[in-house]
Amino acid sequence: MDSKAASSGEGGVVEREEAEGTLVLTLGYDGAGLAGFQRQAGLATVQGRLEEALAVVLRREVSLECAGRTDAGVHALGQVVSLPASGDDPDPASIVRSLNALLGPGIVVSGACRAAAGFSARHDAEAREYRYRLVPGPVPPLFLAGRAWWVKGGLDLGAMREGAHHLLGEHDFRSFCVTESAAGKRTVREIETLDVGPAQEMGEHCVVVRVVGRSFLHSMVRIIVGTLVEVGRGRRPAAWVGEALAASERAAAGPTAPPHGLVLWHVRYPEEPWL
Amino acid sequence: MDSKAASSGEGGVVEREEAEGTLVLTLGYDGAGLAGFQRQAGLATVQGRLEEALAVVLRREVSLECAGRTDAGVHALGQVVSLPASGDDPDPASIVRSLNALLGPGIVVSGACRAAAGFSARHDAEAREYRYRLVPGPVPPLFLAGRAWWVKGGLDLGAMREGAHHLLGEHDFRSFCVTESAAGKRTVREIETLDVGPAQEMGEHCVVVRVVGRSFLHSMVRIIVGTLVEVGRGRRPAAWVGEALAASERAAAGPTAPPHGLVLWHVRYPEEPWL
Repeated sequence: MDSKAASSGEGGVVEREEAEGTLVLTLGYDGAGLAGFQRQAGLATVQGRLEEALAVVLRREVSLECAGRTDAGVHALGQVVSLPASGDDPDPASIVRSLNALLGPGIVVSGACRAAAGFSARHDAEAREYRYRLVPGPVPPLFLAGRAWWVKGGLDLGAMREGAHHLLGEHDFRSFCVTESAAGKRTVREIETLDVGPAQEMGEHCVVVRVVGRSFLHSMVRIIVGTLVEVGRGRRPAAWVGEALAASERAAAGPTAPPHGLVLWHVRYPEEPWL
Repeated sequence: MDSKAASSGEGGVVEREEAEGTLVLTLGYDGAGLAGFQRQAGLATVQGRLEEALAVVLRREVSLECAGRTDAGVHALGQVVSLPASGDDPDPASIVRSLNALLGPGIVVSGACRAAAGFSARHDAEAREYRYRLVPGPVPPLFLAGRAWWVKGGLDLGAMREGAHHLLGEHDFRSFCVTESAAGKRTVREIETLDVGPAQEMGEHCVVVRVVGRSFLHSMVRIIVGTLVEVGRGRRPAAWVGEALAASERAAAGPTAPPHGLVLWHVRYPEEPWL
């Protein structure tokens, strides 16, 4: 367990604050109007707004780690962040209440708990699950507007599933990564689950692409969805997905699907810290 | 079948337009930012925006009837409107496309069809179904924000169902109507279905109150929900719902639930015009 010395402002009395393990928060956010998770000077980001609210609630500067660095416009329901806890912190339920009161709409902290010292929301994550919503057909989404990609024509789900099959398991996903981010980096990843199925949300019909893996390359999920949509629309055969993978270059795969259809849905840990 | 004479602007040639039955549209809208369904001078209303868009698409002034006059802030998924058709109207699929292009987000026309002359979206409706979403618990809704009433504490669904049982069937619902609207009017209505159940939407847990009846008094559904929430919160016993009904005065029932949790979900007709 870490400990640090802090001098109180009054009277020069030196107190010792014991860091007591790790504070873990689960949160969701509407990606619209946010420049992504990661703090950036002058921009509204999840990390920026959350660290500012935490500084008020915990009365100290904090720096947090997250399970998934979502891009601008991408939503989250089950994002997980961690930061060193202090023995002076309010109890977890009060932290949740205070953070939600400070954050206002758009970012919602759904839970807080204490985990062992050294727990990292990022490094201890065993798998990330993303869901991408598509609305096919001639009628635009209503309540799903801003939370789904309207693809206007029909989608052949069988063809999309057949295409998805090529991506399951461990592969070099260089074709499914933003070129600059892939340069000089290991681009092998393993996809555990990749489902395409019909769903109904808020009374509206949609198609959900669900993908689970330990970790993903930059924009990988959105490029996978953009590629599967090419197949679903009948512009490419299902086998093309395998060819795009084998080509190992970004230009071989489909376009990057827009961010507003994507949700970081859930993060799995070998031992869930909140249990 | 109605017919009307119309003189063309050019050369004074008189043409005859045959009214060809009724044009029926199904539509949904996000109630936020709309002053309700009914046209009101100087305010953004569903009727106002839809009649303006129809005038452009059909190239004539129209006046429409609707199945349910929703109040300001109330949403709809299955609203139905009808207006006299003309032989010159574009085909229903083009009407849907053009209307959605003109209306922009917030109002979505999901279907159009021709029905027999004399069909009325309002008078021929056999039943209206409304759904009201509640989010109980300490964590505010995220994706359901603006589409659910956050009631902070817990809700006892069993007690709410017991309370709801008192309202099933035919009763004088004067206690469940805005006082001014009830004055001098028949306030007997019949509730066919009144369910209270847990649901999950967009990954968030909520409680849905589902109510079906031929027609409802002004604010009746929202007063029913406000009353059942008093019971669910444990502020009143379930039997109080029966007492509130028997009292036949607005003050005896609970508060009016806020509009943003309510959706006009579906309208049922003895013969669905779109089948």
